[in-house]
Formats: sequence, structure tokens, C-alpha cells
Amino acid sequence: METVEKPYVIGLDMGGTNSVFGIVDQRGTIKMQTVIETKAYPDVRDYVKASVEALKPALDVVGGIDKVRGMGIGAPNGNYYTGNIEYAANLVWDGIVPIAKLFEEALGIPVKVTNDANAAAMGEMTYGVARGMKNFIMITLGTGVGSGIVVDGNVVYGSDGFAGELGHFIIDHSEHARSCGCGRKGCLETYCSATGVARTAREMLANSPMPSLLRDLNPDEITSLNVFQAAEAGDELAKRIFDYTGRILGESCANFATFNTPEAFVFFGGLTKAGDYLMEPLRKAYDDNILYIFKGKAKLLVSSLNGSEAAVLGASALGWDA
Amino acid sequence: METVEKPYVIGLDMGGTNSVFGIVDQRGTIKMQTVIETKAYPDVRDYVKASVEALKPALDVVGGIDKVRGMGIGAPNGNYYTGNIEYAANLVWDGIVPIAKLFEEALGIPVKVTNDANAAAMGEMTYGVARGMKNFIMITLGTGVGSGIVVDGNVVYGSDGFAGELGHFIIDHSEHARSCGCGRKGCLETYCSATGVARTAREMLANSPMPSLLRDLNPDEITSLNVFQAAEAGDELAKRIFDYTGRILGESCANFATFNTPEAFVFFGGLTKAGDYLMEPLRKAYDDNILYIFKGKAKLLVSSLNGSEAAVLGASALGWDA
Repeated sequence: METVEKPYVIGLDMGGTNSVFGIVDQRGTIKMQTVIETKAYPDVRDYVKASVEALKPALDVVGGIDKVRGMGIGAPNGNYYTGNIEYAANLVWDGIVPIAKLFEEALGIPVKVTNDANAAAMGEMTYGVARGMKNFIMITLGTGVGSGIVVDGNVVYGSDGFAGELGHFIIDHSEHARSCGCGRKGCLETYCSATGVARTAREMLANSPMPSLLRDLNPDEITSLNVFQAAEAGDELAKRIFDYTGRILGESCANFATFNTPEAFVFFGGLTKAGDYLMEPLRKAYDDNILYIFKGKAKLLVSSLNGSEAAVLGASALGWDA
Repeated sequence: METVEKPYVIGLDMGGTNSVFGIVDQRGTIKMQTVIETKAYPDVRDYVKASVEALKPALDVVGGIDKVRGMGIGAPNGNYYTGNIEYAANLVWDGIVPIAKLFEEALGIPVKVTNDANAAAMGEMTYGVARGMKNFIMITLGTGVGSGIVVDGNVVYGSDGFAGELGHFIIDHSEHARSCGCGRKGCLETYCSATGVARTAREMLANSPMPSLLRDLNPDEITSLNVFQAAEAGDELAKRIFDYTGRILGESCANFATFNTPEAFVFFGGLTKAGDYLMEPLRKAYDDNILYIFKGKAKLLVSSLNGSEAAVLGASALGWDA
């Protein structure tokens, strides 16, 4: 009954630069969308005020805040339990920010917050390829690698609200392992993120005599998109870069399966545009490394959500349970 | 009310050789215990009949089956969802055995089954050091390495009923990795089980010129107990063997923490008798490798349950929710 009377949720995808708001219905259609510049508001109270102002015209179109069931926020270091953003390095606000409480007071609706990868998992479960699944693992492949783990139909937030950091799983404990932004070495995201692919490209170009279209570029400026375009043009070295990336990701996912034997892994983010260049070696490495009793049990899927909408949809999905 | 009228549960720790039954109260006291020989019954129906016969005198003492709320079984390849034992290599019964159903029919009480490591996690949560914890990881260090993962107060059974196989997490993907009984290479249990410790001992003895008490033994017959005894006698090589084992386990647990940020890891099994020889390098490696935001959040605990009773207690814990 309540969902009929309150047929919408608000989703907020909060980034260091911009904050994107969407008003979303139960089928995952973004009815209205609006954006403000996150970093223009050094005081978070001004940020919340500006958000409410920006949302007003959009809310008027759908019948006002009374039609909204709740709000979900996907934010860096968002803590589901406390509703706070805690020590987010790439936001302008220091320390602990009670973001859920501030929006609850300003809008008068319940608000939930989590990080972007957990929000993405909620989005896939609510509107995407994981609809109906009770156990799956979301892997986001962007600048970094994020994850959201779903067990028995719920996102795993762990004892502290920050669980599901598979991008910081250390896959190489050797001294040659790659340095990670987290201060340690060998994390999965140093290999399998967009920046990890660029690092692999630089390494392979330096260590291999193979001809490659990528040699025409300044190594320091190579991006994962350059590598994809080279692969599309038939470049063998570029394909090897994705082989290497996909193999590491497939081996890692085969390991992750031992936790919760997921029905699926759902991959999302810029790197998935590489398509089969990434997914084929990933599938092969997964099948080669999966424990016998888990063989063939998990699908390896790419998100079907529109990339530019997915983050807002993911965040909005939290609003239904807020 | 019901727990007062039915104050007991039956726990069955089913091994390839013996089956130990216990009648347990809510405080984790084993009131009565009885044993039958598992492998003496090639037909599982005879096994169930023999079990009921063996239980009868014990049940009479506590007031009969009417005083029993349910039964829990810890069995190799026990599937929590189906109640079946599925293709257990070290049992005399082939294929799929509907063990829960058979006992339900024979005893007239609800029966739940899972594998021994998940049962151990239930035991710790119900009667042991994890009482009151909602998120922890149980690691059993015996002939192999088993695990039970608890999220939000529930054991993670995954999509298939077999989740939580961290012993088969591949920690070494190189060609030099150790062969595992599962048919693959580099699994955690090839390093951190009792047999893994013995393998490390043989390797170190072969590759190091260090003097050691262990050189007096036939390398093929060295056990983890020998290594412990040598360490107790001040043997440096023996201590290095535990350093190596503890470091690998600590690194791995730091990785596992990214999954559900547990309040604790609970270690159980023969290898924990090594005490600080194992736990000190384990703690150090854990602290050295844990992601910054998870630092100091998890306790590293050794089970407080009596070793010989723990398996029965763990199995019995399932009986309360059966």
C-alpha cells in the first residue's frame, strides 16, 4: 500500500566533483535528474541546502516529497550502520559527516547511505541482472576495484559497516607487487582497475619487444580505453594486456566463490567495455581455478544497467528499505 | 516455553570412522554421549537404526525423545539446504544420502545437517568464544583447513549449501605451489593444516643446513606434533616452521577480513595447540597486512571449547534452530 502512495525514491550518487540526484520509480526508471557540484560546498550544511533547492523543481513534477518513500546515498566511505561518511579522502569534508541525518532533517524522509560498490549491488538486485538473486558478488571495475557482496538477499556490511572491500584483497605478497593507494602492495585493484590496465600496458611495453600501436603513445598517458582501441585494431600486445587482467580477475573470483558460492558475479564499470577481450580470459581463468564442487554454479555477468544511470539507480535502491 | 519443555538437543559428529552422539543442554553441557562405528554400516539405513538403538539408553536418562528439541549433524559434505550428504569421499555411502530425512523419520524430531567447520562456527556462536558475535570467521586447523563464515548472526551457506571453503582458497598460483587433495594447487590447507606443517618441515629440512632435532626423525613420518615438541625444546628450525605457517595464515585472514569485516577469527583444531609459536606470527602478519580501515577491529581468538567435545557441541547447536 505504502509503495503505491509513495511510488518514488531519491538516489544520490555522490562523487568528489559532482553529486547526481535521481527520482526513481519501482521499475528503475529515473523520472527526474539533477546535479550539483559537490566540491563547491566546503560546509556540508550548505551542500545539503543546495541539494534540497536543486531537488525542489524535480520533486514538484512527481507530486512533492510526500510521494517519496526514502532516499539512498552512494558515497565514498559511506557507513550503512551509522549513516555517516567517515574520513573520505576525495571529498571536501573532513572527518565524520552525518550525511543521512542531515538529509533526513532537511527532507523529512528516511535516508540510508553506503559506498558506491554496495549501492551498485543493491541496484543490480533491485533493477538489474541480479534481480531475484539471493547470493551474488558485484565487482566494479573503474579507477579502482570495488565490490558489494550479497548473502541471503542482503548486502554484507560486516561488523563495521564497511565490509566488501575485495579490491583491496592482496593477490601478490611478493616484494615486486604493485604499490596501492591504500598504502600497501599487491591489492587486486592495482591490477584489475582501469589504472591497473594502464600500468600493465606500461610494464608490458617496457618488458616486451613486441610491436604495438600503443608504442605511438606517451606511456605515462596510456589509458585502458587506448588499450581497448588498440585491441579492436588487432593489436596483439593490447590483447595480452586484457588476457593478463582477465586471468588475474578470474583467478580471484574463483577464490571469492569459496566465501558465499554466489549464483553470479556481476561486473560493472568502464573496464567492462572491453567485452570479450576481458571476459573470455576471465571466464577461462575462473573455470580453470574454481573448486570442483563449485564448478558451473556461478554465472559471470556484465551489468545491464546504463553506465551513466547505474550509480544513481544503485543509490536509489537503498531508499526502498530506508 | 518450548525450550523449557524440550531442554535438549542431539548433536552428531559424523566422521569416516566413528560417529559421536551427544545429548546437550542449552548451556553446552553434554549430558550423555554415545559412539557407533560409521564404517560398520555399508547401508545407511542400518546406520540410522544402529544410531537410534545406541541413543535409546542415553535418551531414557534425560526423559526420552520428547525432551529433545531437534538434532544437528556435522558431516562431510553435509548440505544445510537439502539435508543431504553429497558425494562424501571419506564415508562408506556413495552419492547422495538423505541423512536428515532418515533421522527425522527415525526419531520424529527436526534434523539439520552441515559440514564440520560450519558446525564448529555454530558451536562457537552458541556455546563458545563467539557467543554474542554477529560477524566472525571460524577457521579449523586439522588434517585440512575448514571454515565457517558468520554474517549478521547466520552461517553463510551460499547459493548451494556448501559455502565457506576458505581452506581451498588458492594462495599460490605459481607452478611451484603445493598440490592439494582437491586436485588443484596452492590451496591454503596445503600450507596451514597439520599436514601442511609437516610438508613445510620436510621442505625446510631439505632446503636448509640448520641443525634441528627434527633431523632425527624419518622425514616422511614427521607430524605437526613433532614440530611443536621440537619448538618446545628450543629448536629454531621448528619455530621457523610455525613462523612460516602463521605468517601465511595471518596474511590470508587479513584478506578474508575484506569480505565481512569480522569481529573475530576463531581458530580451532590440533594445530592451535602450538599456541604462541603459531599465534604470534599469525597476529603479526595479520596486523602487517590488514587494510587500514579494518585495523584493530578483529580479535584473533583460539576456541575455548574442549577439543574432544567441540565437534558434538557444534553439531548440536544446529538442533536449536532445526
